[in-house]
Amino acid sequence: MALVVQKYGGTSVGTTEKIRNVARRVARTYDEGNQVIVVVSAMSGETDKLVGLANEICEIPDEREYDVLVASGEQVTIALLSICLKSMGYEAKSYHGWQIPIRTDNAHSRARIDEIDGKNILADLEKGTIVVVAGFQGVTADGSIATLGRGGSDTSAVAVAAALKADVCEIYTDVDGVYTTDPRIVKEASKIEKISYDEMLEMASLGAKVLQIRSVEFAKKYGVVVHVRSSFNDNTGTLVKEEDSDMETVLVSGITYNKNEAKISVMRVPDEPGIAAKIFGPLSDANITVDMIIQNVSNEGFTDVTFTVMRTDVKKALQIIEETAKTIGAGGIKHDEKIAKVSIVGVGMRSHSGIASKMFSVLSQNGVNIEMISTSEIKVSCIIDDKYTELAVRVLHEAFELDKINVTSE
Amino acid sequence: MALVVQKYGGTSVGTTEKIRNVARRVARTYDEGNQVIVVVSAMSGETDKLVGLANEICEIPDEREYDVLVASGEQVTIALLSICLKSMGYEAKSYHGWQIPIRTDNAHSRARIDEIDGKNILADLEKGTIVVVAGFQGVTADGSIATLGRGGSDTSAVAVAAALKADVCEIYTDVDGVYTTDPRIVKEASKIEKISYDEMLEMASLGAKVLQIRSVEFAKKYGVVVHVRSSFNDNTGTLVKEEDSDMETVLVSGITYNKNEAKISVMRVPDEPGIAAKIFGPLSDANITVDMIIQNVSNEGFTDVTFTVMRTDVKKALQIIEETAKTIGAGGIKHDEKIAKVSIVGVGMRSHSGIASKMFSVLSQNGVNIEMISTSEIKVSCIIDDKYTELAVRVLHEAFELDKINVTSE
Repeated sequence: MALVVQKYGGTSVGTTEKIRNVARRVARTYDEGNQVIVVVSAMSGETDKLVGLANEICEIPDEREYDVLVASGEQVTIALLSICLKSMGYEAKSYHGWQIPIRTDNAHSRARIDEIDGKNILADLEKGTIVVVAGFQGVTADGSIATLGRGGSDTSAVAVAAALKADVCEIYTDVDGVYTTDPRIVKEASKIEKISYDEMLEMASLGAKVLQIRSVEFAKKYGVVVHVRSSFNDNTGTLVKEEDSDMETVLVSGITYNKNEAKISVMRVPDEPGIAAKIFGPLSDANITVDMIIQNVSNEGFTDVTFTVMRTDVKKALQIIEETAKTIGAGGIKHDEKIAKVSIVGVGMRSHSGIASKMFSVLSQNGVNIEMISTSEIKVSCIIDDKYTELAVRVLHEAFELDKINVTSE
Repeated sequence: MALVVQKYGGTSVGTTEKIRNVARRVARTYDEGNQVIVVVSAMSGETDKLVGLANEICEIPDEREYDVLVASGEQVTIALLSICLKSMGYEAKSYHGWQIPIRTDNAHSRARIDEIDGKNILADLEKGTIVVVAGFQGVTADGSIATLGRGGSDTSAVAVAAALKADVCEIYTDVDGVYTTDPRIVKEASKIEKISYDEMLEMASLGAKVLQIRSVEFAKKYGVVVHVRSSFNDNTGTLVKEEDSDMETVLVSGITYNKNEAKISVMRVPDEPGIAAKIFGPLSDANITVDMIIQNVSNEGFTDVTFTVMRTDVKKALQIIEETAKTIGAGGIKHDEKIAKVSIVGVGMRSHSGIASKMFSVLSQNGVNIEMISTSEIKVSCIIDDKYTELAVRVLHEAFELDKINVTSE
């Protein structure tokens, strides 16, 4: 007998008919002799509808009350799924975040889980009850509802799996698993059979939308095996787990891209100690996240500093940096929103040299100019002109033979 | 400074624009120097929508989960109203039943309030915060959500008012108050300025739909003054309060009617000791509520027994009573669903004789035959052919001069 946590997203519970399908799948897992905890999101469209109501009232709703509002969506789903399971003759019981409880910090609408008490759930599981948990929410120390941010149900599921030492945490979604890249761009993109937490973190933060990043951090921290799979078929999906020796034989696991960033350059900056702090301090004070930074080699006591920020922050960043440029006596400011970040990710890079240089030469052979580079142990990212995004993803996917990834690992 | 509890029903919070209106009214009460607790229902139509989803899944949803489902409606309203008040610059905080907590028994979907701990709310009120409470719901001893039945938000409001010793509990609705009778039948029906708890209980249980009966019982038990008024204007409504000497000068306060009952007669019953128990025991065992009972004077050792039950129970009642008739050797069964109960209510009856006989003669003068009669200290009810309902209500309203009730009390 295994303890299985299953999480179903909004599209999987979007209608009562779909909820019935989820109930059948849950029941089948239970009938196979497992203990089952189901974590569900709001029915698709519901959260947007609730946010719409709040915005009819005001532009920036109070955060505590916003959480009360949007948490109601999951409440509807846990009730309907439990009603369905009980009507099929199974013992089932719904849990809100506060009923478990899932304790969070006070950061409303982006709360972090501090602690989960598994006692109540465990007692139900031992009685043979299927436990149905509202995703996306917990309760603060002062008894308020707090939500975990969009995609937070993934994190709820992984956290519950960690707290109860589940054997596996299945994340059901509308795709078959994690792909080597976006199948809308590369039709040869293939499903990855298994991927390490670190690779998944890079994939998630670099633009793949399958799992909320925080859920992967949680899974890594507690060693929860996550199985990403489709709720519409019985195919095996992608296992997200600890790195194993198999994984290292694959040089690159996936190619990601995003077009969310913009580039800002401060020209002819006097190259003196403390200048970086003067440039980036005020941005940080304004809560603007800077992603990549490059600084040219000094030339006659002057240098150019280029960095990227989220496109949504460009306006605010430019206002601040123009002020800074005056103060430090820089030569001027340039910015470019038409950039893309393309990245290759893989734990195989650690043990194989030449991966980065292969990426650079493939891009160059295809006429794609690299404007900025950043690397970590297991990824290389390049900033390029955004009109080359699809081209770059395709040629890299082919060059690293990602269309054959499943063949080698079988 | 007074402590005011205001309750707004579904039609008063049916859209975000209406919620804004409610917020303005709440804010005005606060600005006048009062502490304010607001109790709200789900937006109109929402509860029906949720019930519809449950019924898409199965006919008889599990009761615990049904409560989880329908309680989400009020959660949306408390959040939106709090968001609105905060955007207007007021301190406001929403409370679910479990956050207060409002403790109930385990009778899901028709729970009774056992206890309210006012500590948390009180602390907020003292800080100048407007407290926004989800009506219709509480929490059981084992931490499950329980709802109080349709109209339960009235009871929530009165119970909160009782627990916090509020100065007044204002129930906002879509009518101006409690009327002497149904204005759709008698256009001269007038608003009652004040009415005693006992009269209101009779009015409510006899068919007036303004307040949930249980809320009036609660108000009576704890002496909460309830002010029933419209959320769409500033008119003074109806005060429901302890009986005072003024009230006794009014002979009849209101005329009510309902068409929810049916009449069953058991003919030629052998008149012997214990026969009533033999007839009504099995009905009671089947949870069928019998309202009125009459038994004719015995004639040669036989009698006829006639009683009324809810129309929804007729089929079940007939099955049982046919069985009983055989056992006791009765002559036969008759039943009639086309009846109505018309009642006059008023504490003035206690000190004035001849009210009942005036009712009977008025009905008789107008050709309305009385089939059954039941009386209490403050009401007289007659069962009549249901086609005379409107006629009976009109002639009684005129005979007891209820169209002039406001004139005399001004």
